[in-house]
Amino acid sequence: MKIKNLIAATYAPLHPDGSLNTSIISEYSKFLVRNKVAGVFMNGSTGDFVSLSTEERKEITTAWSQNKTSDLYLIDHVGDPSLKVSMDLATHAADKVDAIAVLAPYYFKLNTIEKLVHYCKEVAACAPNLPFYYYHIPVLSGANLNMLDFLKVASKEIPNLEGIKFTNNNLIDFMHCKHFEDGKFNILFGFDEIFLASLPLGADGWVGSTYNHMAPLYYKIKTLFEAGKMTEAAELQRKAIRFVEILDAHGGFNGVAKGFMKTFGIDCGPSRFPHTTLGDDAYNGIKKELDALGLLEHLSG
Amino acid sequence: MKIKNLIAATYAPLHPDGSLNTSIISEYSKFLVRNKVAGVFMNGSTGDFVSLSTEERKEITTAWSQNKTSDLYLIDHVGDPSLKVSMDLATHAADKVDAIAVLAPYYFKLNTIEKLVHYCKEVAACAPNLPFYYYHIPVLSGANLNMLDFLKVASKEIPNLEGIKFTNNNLIDFMHCKHFEDGKFNILFGFDEIFLASLPLGADGWVGSTYNHMAPLYYKIKTLFEAGKMTEAAELQRKAIRFVEILDAHGGFNGVAKGFMKTFGIDCGPSRFPHTTLGDDAYNGIKKELDALGLLEHLSG
Amino acid sequence: MKIKNLIAATYAPLHPDGSLNTSIISEYSKFLVRNKVAGVFMNGSTGDFVSLSTEERKEITTAWSQNKTSDLYLIDHVGDPSLKVSMDLATHAADKVDAIAVLAPYYFKLNTIEKLVHYCKEVAACAPNLPFYYYHIPVLSGANLNMLDFLKVASKEIPNLEGIKFTNNNLIDFMHCKHFEDGKFNILFGFDEIFLASLPLGADGWVGSTYNHMAPLYYKIKTLFEAGKMTEAAELQRKAIRFVEILDAHGGFNGVAKGFMKTFGIDCGPSRFPHTTLGDDAYNGIKKELDALGLLEHLSG
Amino acid sequence: MKIKNLIAATYAPLHPDGSLNTSIISEYSKFLVRNKVAGVFMNGSTGDFVSLSTEERKEITTAWSQNKTSDLYLIDHVGDPSLKVSMDLATHAADKVDAIAVLAPYYFKLNTIEKLVHYCKEVAACAPNLPFYYYHIPVLSGANLNMLDFLKVASKEIPNLEGIKFTNNNLIDFMHCKHFEDGKFNILFGFDEIFLASLPLGADGWVGSTYNHMAPLYYKIKTLFEAGKMTEAAELQRKAIRFVEILDAHGGFNGVAKGFMKTFGIDCGPSRFPHTTLGDDAYNGIKKELDALGLLEHLSG
Repeated sequence: MKIKNLIAATYAPLHPDGSLNTSIISEYSKFLVRNKVAGVFMNGSTGDFVSLSTEERKEITTAWSQNKTSDLYLIDHVGDPSLKVSMDLATHAADKVDAIAVLAPYYFKLNTIEKLVHYCKEVAACAPNLPFYYYHIPVLSGANLNMLDFLKVASKEIPNLEGIKFTNNNLIDFMHCKHFEDGKFNILFGFDEIFLASLPLGADGWVGSTYNHMAPLYYKIKTLFEAGKMTEAAELQRKAIRFVEILDAHGGFNGVAKGFMKTFGIDCGPSRFPHTTLGDDAYNGIKKELDALGLLEHLSG
Repeated sequence: MKIKNLIAATYAPLHPDGSLNTSIISEYSKFLVRNKVAGVFMNGSTGDFVSLSTEERKEITTAWSQNKTSDLYLIDHVGDPSLKVSMDLATHAADKVDAIAVLAPYYFKLNTIEKLVHYCKEVAACAPNLPFYYYHIPVLSGANLNMLDFLKVASKEIPNLEGIKFTNNNLIDFMHCKHFEDGKFNILFGFDEIFLASLPLGADGWVGSTYNHMAPLYYKIKTLFEAGKMTEAAELQRKAIRFVEILDAHGGFNGVAKGFMKTFGIDCGPSRFPHTTLGDDAYNGIKKELDALGLLEHLSG
Repeated sequence: MKIKNLIAATYAPLHPDGSLNTSIISEYSKFLVRNKVAGVFMNGSTGDFVSLSTEERKEITTAWSQNKTSDLYLIDHVGDPSLKVSMDLATHAADKVDAIAVLAPYYFKLNTIEKLVHYCKEVAACAPNLPFYYYHIPVLSGANLNMLDFLKVASKEIPNLEGIKFTNNNLIDFMHCKHFEDGKFNILFGFDEIFLASLPLGADGWVGSTYNHMAPLYYKIKTLFEAGKMTEAAELQRKAIRFVEILDAHGGFNGVAKGFMKTFGIDCGPSRFPHTTLGDDAYNGIKKELDALGLLEHLSG
Repeated sequence: MKIKNLIAATYAPLHPDGSLNTSIISEYSKFLVRNKVAGVFMNGSTGDFVSLSTEERKEITTAWSQNKTSDLYLIDHVGDPSLKVSMDLATHAADKVDAIAVLAPYYFKLNTIEKLVHYCKEVAACAPNLPFYYYHIPVLSGANLNMLDFLKVASKEIPNLEGIKFTNNNLIDFMHCKHFEDGKFNILFGFDEIFLASLPLGADGWVGSTYNHMAPLYYKIKTLFEAGKMTEAAELQRKAIRFVEILDAHGGFNGVAKGFMKTFGIDCGPSRFPHTTLGDDAYNGIKKELDALGLLEHLSG
């Protein structure tokens, strides 16, 4: 049974002093479920995994696991440039979450499918009873490999391969992956700003940071699309894009969007370097800008 | 009245010895009209403009002009690294075609909107009564500028600005351009392989090389999309992608696809360097591959 | 007998109205000889070949040829994205200059040695009695191929292959090319700002734009280097770098440096798009900046 | 008193099972001193820091510290994408080594000098009594910032800033950094293959992996250079380049070169993913190739 619908890439919750604050995860979880988010992708790029210690990543995994409910699917990103660290994280996650994922090592860039499959296979074997996802995000990882080629090899080598979190705008490769072996693999689309473009291509699962903030809007886009109301769907998609652009203009999307969670009552605390942390005044200004666009009504609640 | 629907990026017709052969343009024109192609984008990347002399480009313009019919809209690409040459080509085209287009100079790369608008404005002024398009193809031109920013400036500076031939996979920028000033500008989508993804975003005009070969297939995709039959639409889009991939694997898409025109009775002759020219045997092999995919029935006729 | 020492990449001389002004070439030639420049590389990047028509490029070739003296070696760059145009230019140059050169076609990027050698071979054969150079400038041409690999193939295929104008900072590849077949080929170094770094590697011929302006300074660097006075040599090299940076900061080096020629009495006229043309006042300001660095005394005279 | 001369970027010593083996560091240290290596750059790219856990990095630091002798300067690379981890490593190193260094975070790429200085300042403050180096390696870190600009800001913000490990082929920027504030900062050149090109530019300190294997050869190049024997110096430099190319061709330089240490009696054990580990037979083959080039006599002993 594949996970479908919207999956939120969650933020690393911190205390004002920058230390981990897993106490909010219970509320965070309820907030997501209330907004019909189907799952969580923790410890990913949105979750600032590179700015956390290995121990902190494990604590986050444990905390989500302790708040697990049947209506929220938990994917834990355990990738790391160190295969050893990644295997350690996978082993830790094996009895706590619903699935694991890894991106490619991103210092020494991987440039062959063989190396990538080798890496994934070793990590996947540390949580053999969990579905395994490869997290394809070449803009950040530098591993710009073809995912259809990856599936052809990995599907034979990794028994628990479940799919790909596909964060790239190569829609040709996305279509091929969706179609591979009669759609056997779960290809989660990871580019929120073109959610609408993914719909006619058959996308049915999505992972992204903005599903924290605007899940209702995205479900409306989907409904409009299914009703053939493309003009209205495109108008909402543009609003979603404007949300990202407006926050981004205030100092970088990642950090600013994390702080914005506070306006929903989910205080994730400050951002870690190199991301921006803003004060309450800044968020009041941002909300005014969003209001002027008629965006407030579409946000999560 | 904006040009809409499918526009074919046409090939440069050559004799077997590599010299220009404009005599086939009359048949070429009828072939396109017969397949419901609405327009022609001549002297573009598909048309190997960089491998033609300035004089040859003019002859091609003249030949299409002499075969002009009311049901085929003619856009002439007159861009060149030399502004002077581009202005010369625009002046020549001014009384012969329906619209002109330019890409950005591609040796000394343009990196500011101001420089780009300056270039476009000078060329557009040489054909002041014709609609003017900017041809955005950053992968080849190296001018990776934001098109919304371009429209904001160019719309004030270039009275005959009509739109953009948008050959890039930045669908965010595409949506913004479509929406700019209530959709005033004609943003022609130029990435054939993701035609289907452009539909919910509001695309209604497309320029590409594969509209020479598969116009009927693309109209079917559009019909299926409008009927809400997304699975079938996606299946056809994948076939269109496979067409490109199969031809590409035989020595490079541009050259191989040009030769493929002969199978429709439109003999465009050999390709110029650096593109590949294949023999008839190769095309028989290619047709067998296409047949195995059930693609032959979807080709132009 | 290989051409050695400093070769100036010359500017395209224009009238104030932007049309060609070959009448200054006689003076330009004397100026270079007076400053001990050993040769001319015409119609290159410095010479704005991409902004000239084919006819204008020929006129420049003819004009330099008519002013030819025994003490100035003439290399004509005849490269063009169109192989046909390049062959035409080579044929025209065959009885007029001492050598020809081509860069790689730069719209459809060449990505194999075979394609590059094919292109070079065809052009070289149009001037079979002239030495032939490949102009390696991957930052602008996009053809980022290994030059040792090129020499291995081209040396067997192109009988009149003389060497490479090597405008790249891959000094490893440069050393390999210098050493190939006992130094048989003439590898002209093309990165003026690191002239000094090329000296211990065995460079003995250089092509660049700043040899128009500062040939005496570069000869002093060479003399200091040969005397083991590295500190003083490096100090002069830094001054040469500052010259480039100062002019560049006034609107782009290519255009600004062309206008600077007027201060030597060689009025090359305005720059063509996209380069900058400055007025006399600007040059007075620039000269003050150069004076403050003690650079004026090192300029050509 | 600035560290000068050759500094070896050391390997992470492992047991055959892949666990840390710091017991060889005593011998490793004597080997380097015997070959006149002046210092050690530990936990860098050569040392596979990205494949080590934080704890392992600390153990390596401690082990070198325990084997410290007055004739071997110890630089510990403590950079990490997580500022918190980097500060932890710096604090640990503060009383153990002679200097620390950091590269830029390499997942979320830094694109402003301000961000980079902020990061460096926070880490440098954790070891306030140690000289601090920035490790500039844009090809791997993705932080392609100008180092002169960095020095201008960092020199005012970071009291213990000592210099830069400059692993980039922008020799212009290198010269500017060497010259900045009368040569106040120690700019260590990090591109072994063009060691010779750095000599006339004033380089007097070098960090690299090949100084493990060929320190005697590099000292010979320096001596030849100082004696004005450039042809012989260039010949040796080419041999050093060939060493890198030959090992690289056997499965990637990093991993293969680590295994090669065993031939000197310094058994660093296997490489971690993604690097290659070869068997003894392979090294016998490699030694034959090096012998054929006359390279064996120039290796460390």
